[in-house]
Amino acid sequence: MQKLVESVPNFSEGTNLTKIKQIANSAKKIKGVKILNVEWDKSHNRSLVTLIGAPDKVLRASFEMIKTATKLIDMRKHKGEHPRIGATDVVPFVPVSGVTLAECVVLSNELAKRVAKELKIPVYLYEAAAKRKNRVNLADVRKGEYESLKKEIQTNPERKPDYGPSKMHPSAGAIVIGARKYLVAYNVNLDTKNIEIAKKIASRLREKNGGLPAVKALGFKVGGYAQVSMNLVDFEKTNFDEAYRAIEKEAERFKVGIRNSEIYGMIPLEALVRATVTSFKVKSFKSDQVLEKRLYE
Amino acid sequence: MQKLVESVPNFSEGTNLTKIKQIANSAKKIKGVKILNVEWDKSHNRSLVTLIGAPDKVLRASFEMIKTATKLIDMRKHKGEHPRIGATDVVPFVPVSGVTLAECVVLSNELAKRVAKELKIPVYLYEAAAKRKNRVNLADVRKGEYESLKKEIQTNPERKPDYGPSKMHPSAGAIVIGARKYLVAYNVNLDTKNIEIAKKIASRLREKNGGLPAVKALGFKVGGYAQVSMNLVDFEKTNFDEAYRAIEKEAERFKVGIRNSEIYGMIPLEALVRATVTSFKVKSFKSDQVLEKRLYE
Repeated sequence: MQKLVESVPNFSEGTNLTKIKQIANSAKKIKGVKILNVEWDKSHNRSLVTLIGAPDKVLRASFEMIKTATKLIDMRKHKGEHPRIGATDVVPFVPVSGVTLAECVVLSNELAKRVAKELKIPVYLYEAAAKRKNRVNLADVRKGEYESLKKEIQTNPERKPDYGPSKMHPSAGAIVIGARKYLVAYNVNLDTKNIEIAKKIASRLREKNGGLPAVKALGFKVGGYAQVSMNLVDFEKTNFDEAYRAIEKEAERFKVGIRNSEIYGMIPLEALVRATVTSFKVKSFKSDQVLEKRLYE
Repeated sequence: MQKLVESVPNFSEGTNLTKIKQIANSAKKIKGVKILNVEWDKSHNRSLVTLIGAPDKVLRASFEMIKTATKLIDMRKHKGEHPRIGATDVVPFVPVSGVTLAECVVLSNELAKRVAKELKIPVYLYEAAAKRKNRVNLADVRKGEYESLKKEIQTNPERKPDYGPSKMHPSAGAIVIGARKYLVAYNVNLDTKNIEIAKKIASRLREKNGGLPAVKALGFKVGGYAQVSMNLVDFEKTNFDEAYRAIEKEAERFKVGIRNSEIYGMIPLEALVRATVTSFKVKSFKSDQVLEKRLYE
């Protein structure tokens, strides 16, 4: 099975399209890496690029982009609504297929080493790659943002970076690198206008309330109807089909049906394959049996 | 959406591996075409190659293989259990994604023209590409096989080829080319050892008995348990999830459950996407949302 990793570097540039394109294009130096998406937000003054490919290639492409962003973005002049600590602000590696989260942790360390050594930028590791408990959450790492960290990094041992100098890069600041599972955004729309039912179901579904593992859920009103909106943060633990069935069961208690559901954004093939295996008890079905998968091997 | 077509040319060579490889390898001249599978059977003295790619490329690759088979196989010396009329015996084009069956009919005609003109081989069109009612079924076209057709093609107007000379190619015979839908082989294993139940369910499921559209079904005993074995000859009409649910419902009448199911061989991504949409009422979900699909575009 071909190894596939996704990387979604976030850059502190959301207004100058020429610069955003220059950053994205530098990934193209590495053959075999595919840019899936480039998006930006003016008020956040921030852009993000979604890359996919073999782990070593995605690593090299991410480095090329960081190098370009380091040249083009000056944090001393940066203003934007979104929290950030550097020109390249965050780089998460995400396993897509044939790759474990542990391998993405190794990738994070390799990229961090290279960034520290060649670009002299301090690096913090977060999520699955975190070396300290208080660096698992991105918000904790970014606390005080670029402006505060600039001083603290030199004085507070709690904020010493995991790689690189204990001093901000003059223009590029610092970078957070890490590994996390693929996040599937999945919404289920109920056949009721009563938002309270969506809120109650969401509450029962949430992992922290003893619901489904790796599920974050909220109740909303969308287009006049109640919606259970979920982040499935590890589809190997709870996949969309399992969430659907759980909601269907909960909704029955309120005598409410399901209008429809939505898979928001991209989803790895493996999630569809797992849903097929679970829902139709398909014996030994593998993603390699999907014709299209064979095309890029 | 990228256009993808499958072609599965069958060759009258199942013993000489060097020749089989030479035939398969000639497809590699055309960049972007992927050989998914090469299989052969000694007693049938027959091999088949599964190709996938953009329509024009699959057409050219199929032609290259036919050209090689024409040089390497001599039908005057061919013996095998499987019915055949030529060195390249059958070439079906199958839509996989972004392509209609009608486009595959056009491909069939283009390939037929080229084979007739450049290789002087008579060509019959079958299945969706058939120009005569009695050429829809492959068995009808191959009636009497190479040995009988050799005489009849010259004398019987009913057997005049659709393209090319009314005379067999001295060594390569004739070729059947056509278009058909992708066939999904799907089995559902029941939680009973009573094969009669599988036979009854299969009978009710069959299209010709007024069951599900585009479903062929038989009841078998496999590993001691009853199995409903199906060919889903058009998954856009009846997909595997619909067959599963229909069998589940029928089996309930016998108070029998489903042990598991099997997707045999390859399946187009589109079938998984459709099953997801149907089973979980997923609104406007497209195969382009599957990460891996973006890789080969």
